[in-house]
Amino acid sequence: MSLEISKEFIEKIQTLIETKDDKALTYLLADEHYADIAELLDDLSFDQAIYIIKLLDSDKTSDILIELDEDTREKILENLSIKEIAEELEELDTDDAADMVAELPEERQARVISAIEDEEHKAEIEELLTYDEDTAGGLMAKELVKVYETWTVAGCLRRIRGQAKDVKRVHSIYVVNKEEQLIGRLSLKDLIIAKNDQKIGDIYISNVDSVHVNDDGEEIAKVMAKYDLEAIPVVDDNQVLLGRITIDDIVDVLKEEADKDYKLAAGITEDVEADDSILELTRARLPWLILGLFGGLGAVLIMEGFEEALKKYKDLFFFTPLIAAMAGNVGVQSSAIIVQGLANDTVKGSLFNRLLKEIGLSLINGFVLGIIVIASGYLMNLDLNFSVTVAISMLCVIIVAALIGTFVPIILDKRGIDPAIATGPFITTSNDIFGIFLFFYIAKLILGF
Amino acid sequence: MSLEISKEFIEKIQTLIETKDDKALTYLLADEHYADIAELLDDLSFDQAIYIIKLLDSDKTSDILIELDEDTREKILENLSIKEIAEELEELDTDDAADMVAELPEERQARVISAIEDEEHKAEIEELLTYDEDTAGGLMAKELVKVYETWTVAGCLRRIRGQAKDVKRVHSIYVVNKEEQLIGRLSLKDLIIAKNDQKIGDIYISNVDSVHVNDDGEEIAKVMAKYDLEAIPVVDDNQVLLGRITIDDIVDVLKEEADKDYKLAAGITEDVEADDSILELTRARLPWLILGLFGGLGAVLIMEGFEEALKKYKDLFFFTPLIAAMAGNVGVQSSAIIVQGLANDTVKGSLFNRLLKEIGLSLINGFVLGIIVIASGYLMNLDLNFSVTVAISMLCVIIVAALIGTFVPIILDKRGIDPAIATGPFITTSNDIFGIFLFFYIAKLILGF
Repeated sequence: MSLEISKEFIEKIQTLIETKDDKALTYLLADEHYADIAELLDDLSFDQAIYIIKLLDSDKTSDILIELDEDTREKILENLSIKEIAEELEELDTDDAADMVAELPEERQARVISAIEDEEHKAEIEELLTYDEDTAGGLMAKELVKVYETWTVAGCLRRIRGQAKDVKRVHSIYVVNKEEQLIGRLSLKDLIIAKNDQKIGDIYISNVDSVHVNDDGEEIAKVMAKYDLEAIPVVDDNQVLLGRITIDDIVDVLKEEADKDYKLAAGITEDVEADDSILELTRARLPWLILGLFGGLGAVLIMEGFEEALKKYKDLFFFTPLIAAMAGNVGVQSSAIIVQGLANDTVKGSLFNRLLKEIGLSLINGFVLGIIVIASGYLMNLDLNFSVTVAISMLCVIIVAALIGTFVPIILDKRGIDPAIATGPFITTSNDIFGIFLFFYIAKLILGF
Repeated sequence: MSLEISKEFIEKIQTLIETKDDKALTYLLADEHYADIAELLDDLSFDQAIYIIKLLDSDKTSDILIELDEDTREKILENLSIKEIAEELEELDTDDAADMVAELPEERQARVISAIEDEEHKAEIEELLTYDEDTAGGLMAKELVKVYETWTVAGCLRRIRGQAKDVKRVHSIYVVNKEEQLIGRLSLKDLIIAKNDQKIGDIYISNVDSVHVNDDGEEIAKVMAKYDLEAIPVVDDNQVLLGRITIDDIVDVLKEEADKDYKLAAGITEDVEADDSILELTRARLPWLILGLFGGLGAVLIMEGFEEALKKYKDLFFFTPLIAAMAGNVGVQSSAIIVQGLANDTVKGSLFNRLLKEIGLSLINGFVLGIIVIASGYLMNLDLNFSVTVAISMLCVIIVAALIGTFVPIILDKRGIDPAIATGPFITTSNDIFGIFLFFYIAKLILGF
């Protein structure tokens, strides 16, 4: 087991491409997994990658294309003819094929589809393209093993041999009635253990989970993770079996979701990667920085409003970055815990209890941090009265920051907005402004300037 | 498909527990999935949960226990006798059983294990307990379907019927030689399609991925996700087949990893949830806040060092929260992109190119933000010379913050430290200090105070 491609291997491939030694190349790549070849292509120049794709058989290149990064795949497909793309699609499962077609420019889509020779495959891909990509319909594949309740075990095994050739992995055998409605499931294991002359109707398990074709991908991921399912059938309004979703697609959904939340928390909106262009990265990052900038300008205005304090308590102004940092850190912590709790359904109990808990937590944290501030103030020769004022104001800022961090995501979630957007710069910036204002306001109340 | 338990159902169950109507309870819960009953137990009082666990059969309760939150499970197990726990273990797959034993207090572990009646199951659990929980050994189960290369297809199917009863899901059939070494694999589908008198040695697929028993869980997750595997066999130094890891365990590893990174980015160390106690939450959050506090105190000292500027350029001090916020936001963005890139292996190319890219990106962002600062300064009646100074210093701060955010995770990763620790408070705090110092230093150079 190795995840890395060696430099020697890459160089060998590059030399063989230069000398156009197709025979040696085909031989060398024959035993490589498509996921490894996809990685190899990332390390080659674009022309070299195209060379490999055109050289290998479409049963292998189709899987390689699916593994590639979306940008790379798009560029390669631009260099393939309509017929070549159609050949790749013939080899792919319907879900991957539909995803690949959807990425093509609109004017090519129809031409590529009509170039697919297998009529059934073509119709299935066309059907999948009608569903929204984030729904069960957009995730499912049409490939599945389906048996009728009236069949016998022996007949079933015979016919499964035919169907199974088109299905890479048989997770479950779905049992339907003559109206094509899903009524149950069987595993290959059940079928092997059963006697040959038994009827499917007598041995199938009627307790079968299914999802509706319009159900949301994230919800399906939760269901499959909760019930430890490796595949789930998809049905329409009339319980008619339309397709199935497998766990590997769900692993991708979970991963994308986690990546998106992580990026949002860091103030990165679009789906960018370290290797994207400077322009793409700027588009994903700059809006959040501008938000932060306006927050900072707001803080300038607030401090100008408290300018008269400069004469007697200039140290207050030295403490503003500290207050802003505490407000930001506490807010982000609170919101991260809530956002994760909402995602995992562990946020339970009343809002009032949560309020009490956050206040309690903030009091403990604020008290400990306040002691440190007072002790540090002593070491820095600050007036005790002043240090205590800073500590008390900071405590109040921490409580408010925790409450904002907790309740903004909860409110967003109740309104159907992704609460993950609340973490990161949004919470930090609003807490900066709130925190600095509150800090000066409370200091003014206590010190009376 | 429904993820929620209705209030009426919970109340019905509670009434039945109060009236001790065991028959109605058993009947009502018979058709419920164990994952749903686990959720139900979360909504009941602790005594009610124990009542349900003691009432139901151990083939059901064992699965329920595994689904429960670790804290709840621990508390319930404290209330079960050694014999009752041993009965639960008999029903569980070896991996889950070993995990459950590992959670027991040490003095109970040995007693529970010796109470297990099935000698083979006992030995397997004892073996699994010897592996580190984050390795392949700690993740694998001993349940698998294994055939010898010398068997025929018909003989194989006959014997598989026996083995398969103990295995919940047959992903792959592993083929071994007479030294018990893994030499290949077969799917049930292959076996069904083959002729009865063929030898396994003639039909098996010799190209089989496997992991070593000491391999790290995260690495295995990457391999399984990359090659779309649903199960992977585990071998020892001599290629002897020891067990198998299934995708549902890997889904859990991926989810935990994502949750951990997300928490680290927000400055939360331990594995806490919204529903944990105030003390647990404080322990996870306070250390990071203290780090941030010391950062803020550092900023106070820096500003005291530039105190003479207060007379002529007091506005500089009003801008410090803005500078700190920009330094923090830019740093977190850069490090989040790098941390994710490292996790997904998309960080490629030389360090020098990355350096150029980050500087280019920072120049664009800094330029746009600088224009906004100058325009805002005009509206706020600030001296143009002063606004330009702020804009230029901010630009420098942004460049340095981006470089720190980018290279700290890369350096940590090279030294084998989890780079995710670099995002969040760590980067924010160090960038706050650096940023504020740089801001005043450059302002001093330009304005000359």
